[in-house]
Amino acid sequence: MNRSECEALDRDDPLAPKRGAFAIPEGLIYLDGNSLGVLPAHVPGRVRDVVETQWGGSLIRSWNEHGWLALPRRVGDRIARLIGAPAGSVVAGDTISVNLFKLLGAAAQLAGPRRVILSDDGNFPSDLYVAQGFRDLVDDGYALEIVAPEEVVDALDERVAFTMLTEVDYRTARRHDMRAVTAKAHARGARVIWDLAHSAGAIPVDLAAAGADFAVGCTYKYLNGGPGSPAFLYVRPDLQDIVRPPLTGWWGHAEPFAFTPDYRPAPGIDRFQCGTQPILSMAALDAALDVWDGVVMRDVREKSLALCSLFIDLVEERCARHGVTVTGPRETAARGSHVSLRHPQGHAVMQALIASGVVGDFRAPDMMRFGFAPLYTRFTDVFDAVAIMAGILDTRRWDEPRYHARRAVT
Amino acid sequence: MNRSECEALDRDDPLAPKRGAFAIPEGLIYLDGNSLGVLPAHVPGRVRDVVETQWGGSLIRSWNEHGWLALPRRVGDRIARLIGAPAGSVVAGDTISVNLFKLLGAAAQLAGPRRVILSDDGNFPSDLYVAQGFRDLVDDGYALEIVAPEEVVDALDERVAFTMLTEVDYRTARRHDMRAVTAKAHARGARVIWDLAHSAGAIPVDLAAAGADFAVGCTYKYLNGGPGSPAFLYVRPDLQDIVRPPLTGWWGHAEPFAFTPDYRPAPGIDRFQCGTQPILSMAALDAALDVWDGVVMRDVREKSLALCSLFIDLVEERCARHGVTVTGPRETAARGSHVSLRHPQGHAVMQALIASGVVGDFRAPDMMRFGFAPLYTRFTDVFDAVAIMAGILDTRRWDEPRYHARRAVT
Repeated sequence: MNRSECEALDRDDPLAPKRGAFAIPEGLIYLDGNSLGVLPAHVPGRVRDVVETQWGGSLIRSWNEHGWLALPRRVGDRIARLIGAPAGSVVAGDTISVNLFKLLGAAAQLAGPRRVILSDDGNFPSDLYVAQGFRDLVDDGYALEIVAPEEVVDALDERVAFTMLTEVDYRTARRHDMRAVTAKAHARGARVIWDLAHSAGAIPVDLAAAGADFAVGCTYKYLNGGPGSPAFLYVRPDLQDIVRPPLTGWWGHAEPFAFTPDYRPAPGIDRFQCGTQPILSMAALDAALDVWDGVVMRDVREKSLALCSLFIDLVEERCARHGVTVTGPRETAARGSHVSLRHPQGHAVMQALIASGVVGDFRAPDMMRFGFAPLYTRFTDVFDAVAIMAGILDTRRWDEPRYHARRAVT
Repeated sequence: MNRSECEALDRDDPLAPKRGAFAIPEGLIYLDGNSLGVLPAHVPGRVRDVVETQWGGSLIRSWNEHGWLALPRRVGDRIARLIGAPAGSVVAGDTISVNLFKLLGAAAQLAGPRRVILSDDGNFPSDLYVAQGFRDLVDDGYALEIVAPEEVVDALDERVAFTMLTEVDYRTARRHDMRAVTAKAHARGARVIWDLAHSAGAIPVDLAAAGADFAVGCTYKYLNGGPGSPAFLYVRPDLQDIVRPPLTGWWGHAEPFAFTPDYRPAPGIDRFQCGTQPILSMAALDAALDVWDGVVMRDVREKSLALCSLFIDLVEERCARHGVTVTGPRETAARGSHVSLRHPQGHAVMQALIASGVVGDFRAPDMMRFGFAPLYTRFTDVFDAVAIMAGILDTRRWDEPRYHARRAVT
């Protein structure tokens, strides 16, 4: 594949016009994998309106007049469409960690005598930390069992109360078969909590078709909601009224403004709300989701697979000889929309890439992660990124001292 | 007191120049009591910079280069100064409800065999809901006992693990004696969790002098952080390393970017962080706190007391004959910075006030609440607000049908 062929792919790309909806810095190839999606071009104007007109002008009245109170549900419904969830089953707010805790408490109410929480070692560590905190607080015999991702299905036995899995591995992009895992869990009487952090906006998710019980996810990656934008939470409609979250705040109360002394859960997904949400961040997310209007996830997936395949092929052709290896499954159907590469000097190589205008991120000890957001990544971006990486490796440019300073990256 | 005398008070007010730091709509008397403080005039520019330059331009690098990762601690330290807390004892993030849950879990680790959570019926109901959710989840014999505010001190006996109190009553503005309650609790071997929702930025708080164990608070009222801006949490330094929060996310991990499978709490206040925070809302809050640079809380309190006294005196003089009563203690030292009035037609009177450019809020069934933010409320605002209210009552203007439509207000 040469550059002209990539240019042809970009010309024929049905999603190509979407790139114009984003404010991407000139000359930057942004393949962050993906802790912060790029800024949709219309978001600054919308945020300005929320700050100056709504907060500044309408002040307290905005909770009703500008729909602030309704934002968690409104945003939730907009995300629902992208993850195969029915309206009224998703609510936005808080963080993945907090939402996961809510769902652990809810799932535990369906556990009967079972006391095993099953997860895998490809899960994002913070999810495991939340489960550890839950286990220690509840102190009711829960055990957290962690197996390899490919062992999850076999480990789903009659001791398992629920399994808690991230669909797409944050490092290798290995993708669980949501439908198969959920079916097996249900056959064994267990529940599943899915983390869609690297799925929402990246791959087609069909929570309803899979019969998924619970899910969480974030919005600052492929949904471009902005730094640390609010997370979301899904509960299958038939479960919403038979469980209650352990975090019981007024926004989840049946009558939040009645100020009764006793908690009474709101019907439906609203009971999974808790406290007052950060409206500036929530409004930016709401605006960002406009970009998704009319987008069909099947088109997104098709382009995502093509971008990832192109990247993997070019890396193997031009970088493998320098000790770069591709992680995760080769079969694209079993992958998400990012690709992680290993190299003993991965951190330095990534610093050299960033200095050359190609932004990915790094996960210790040796993993360079590249995300391919189909709405704004071009085939020529992929071509150029690999060409630049090959140049850095060919000339050992990563060996310059300035690329070896360590600092925290997200 | 006539209007000329109020004008003289405004001329002599040492805080008067601060009003210019805020963007207050022309002609509006904003006495929301206080679910959303007004917009500081410089905040729109700062938010624009965060959205366009930091998110849009620097993208993922902003977590380090623009200090996003450090915001919860930076903002926490700025709030600490206003509530008598040492640097390193406050962290901003999440919501009051979520932070309260963290502290319930932490306080429970110091409970020994005690199992009573003591609160009062002047507490904000959401705090009680959170305690109920905690009690039900932990299922370890905890009981929530609720007494009248004036009975708290006597109810602090050897069964009480911790008491959870809002310093200033969200309705009546009655203020607990933080120092006396904390001392009594400690003498009886109990801990105290203070909610500073109606205290921070409104009255001088001295957590260190009181020896307070734990506290939470919000920032969207008197601190003008914006709608739903992140909450904060305080843990006394000597307790930080001997308790751990039940919400254990990666932002509270000793090495968040090491991605180890097991949770290991960060030293100090950082362990009370959990998930990724909403940076746009957090950055707006950080900017808003600039207004407080150089402000001495003693000056704030002095003006607050004068504003509240003026309001109460004028209301009693001009509105009491129409059945308006002032709630809460008459002694100003025992009050916060808002005043709630009762009237059988309180909702309609408040709607008529709002239509006349005086914004307070309403709490069912009959309470009109007025907040006095000393940084931007003038004595003439108080005079004019009462004059307008007296006019509405004198003419029974609240009886117009348009003022009787009900809707949710915050």
